[in-house]
Amino acid sequence: MDKATIIKIGGNIVDNEALLQPFLRTFAALAGAKILVHGGGKLATRLAEELNIPQQVIDGRRITSAETLKIVTMVYAGYINKNIVARLQSHECNAIGLTGADGNCIRAHKRAAGEIDYGFAGDVDAVDASFFSRMLVEQIAPVVAPLTHDGKGQLLNTNADTIAQQVAQALSKHFQTTLVYCFEKEGVLTDTADEESVIQHITPDSYKTLRSGNIIFAGMIPKLDAAFAAVASGVARVVIGNGNKLDKLLEGTSGTSITNGA
Amino acid sequence: MDKATIIKIGGNIVDNEALLQPFLRTFAALAGAKILVHGGGKLATRLAEELNIPQQVIDGRRITSAETLKIVTMVYAGYINKNIVARLQSHECNAIGLTGADGNCIRAHKRAAGEIDYGFAGDVDAVDASFFSRMLVEQIAPVVAPLTHDGKGQLLNTNADTIAQQVAQALSKHFQTTLVYCFEKEGVLTDTADEESVIQHITPDSYKTLRSGNIIFAGMIPKLDAAFAAVASGVARVVIGNGNKLDKLLEGTSGTSITNGA
Repeated sequence: MDKATIIKIGGNIVDNEALLQPFLRTFAALAGAKILVHGGGKLATRLAEELNIPQQVIDGRRITSAETLKIVTMVYAGYINKNIVARLQSHECNAIGLTGADGNCIRAHKRAAGEIDYGFAGDVDAVDASFFSRMLVEQIAPVVAPLTHDGKGQLLNTNADTIAQQVAQALSKHFQTTLVYCFEKEGVLTDTADEESVIQHITPDSYKTLRSGNIIFAGMIPKLDAAFAAVASGVARVVIGNGNKLDKLLEGTSGTSITNGA
Repeated sequence: MDKATIIKIGGNIVDNEALLQPFLRTFAALAGAKILVHGGGKLATRLAEELNIPQQVIDGRRITSAETLKIVTMVYAGYINKNIVARLQSHECNAIGLTGADGNCIRAHKRAAGEIDYGFAGDVDAVDASFFSRMLVEQIAPVVAPLTHDGKGQLLNTNADTIAQQVAQALSKHFQTTLVYCFEKEGVLTDTADEESVIQHITPDSYKTLRSGNIIFAGMIPKLDAAFAAVASGVARVVIGNGNKLDKLLEGTSGTSITNGA
């Protein structure tokens, strides 16, 4: 089974030219099938401010009004996505920028309004693994913006961590898949103030122990839950670590590795 | 040889929901291989105004400063392109949104500054026909935004008429290709005030006669020159006409047809 690597980067890299430049160079040089999923960063918030469109964020999730959807579509699928693609091309990496609407590759539904109405926020229903596989076989690296669609003409703002997880899970039927979550820390830490306190390896069993001992910072729980859902669904390995050490994360010499067993 | 249709729409359709909706429905229903190239419309100008970014247009071409490039990347490749793609998906047309950077499908160079410095404006060097062909064979309709790249990481604002012409020419090696320029008139008119004065068919010979008699409105000359360049390079037929009569333009019962001979 061929290998595929799905890498998610967020605002800390997207917004920081000093990190983005070396990251893209390293990504471009990676051998084999690879997919980049990028988050939004602060540019959408800045543009909304300039246009006097009020923004509301609850628990780290943006409430997506119609006007905000227009902004994130412009910023995520336009500015950020196409600039990443053009720069990967300059590093001899043939990339293609996608939202979930393109090639109908990620279908979602609008999240039903409960206590909170998230607006035009999407929850993923289906990833077309064969679409991504065809791109990968042609040695094209998909670059996925955090937008999906509902099949009825509506784009939906969608969490990039979730997109990365769902794409990795879908591809695990065709590839031996590694999912990498890049963020600003060295990995999952036992002491958030100490970047040397990285937990090198977590399995479902050790996760239970860590959680019951309240050893893991609450903010990491959603990412870890997504990671364990991914390995439970066929992803070989999830790595969480610092995006400026991508090579080492893939080698297993940096970050936290999450697998199904010892 | 299979047939392929390349259709270009401009601001008059992109900006007008009452025209865009039926156009996309008709495009989605077209049988066979098809590509949509869209222009920008007024939204980029409006956004620039809201953000207080001065815009300069000379001879119908936008001078593309770095800030303007950012805006057109957001509006053309983001907002317009992805909404068209999502809506085509809702009409059961599997579409994929592209700039020239995606899949390295259209390479260009920055236009050298002469008397006028157009800024980040691109002149097309190469279209990867095999990339487009692979999409078409998979029954995916490319939707192309008017942006290209230089292979060195730079996106470039590029005339949509030219992109449509160049893509049609490149594809004519693989397909029997028809290029359709949709605009607000019924076709090439002998009297711009009379929509019934459409010239039904123009060949290189009749074009010479029409031009020497000053029968054609000056504003049409660039489009016609592009059309004749296309048919000289292998495109079977170019049609210029009203975008809300797409079916009739393709049947040959509306608009002006340009071919190499009688």
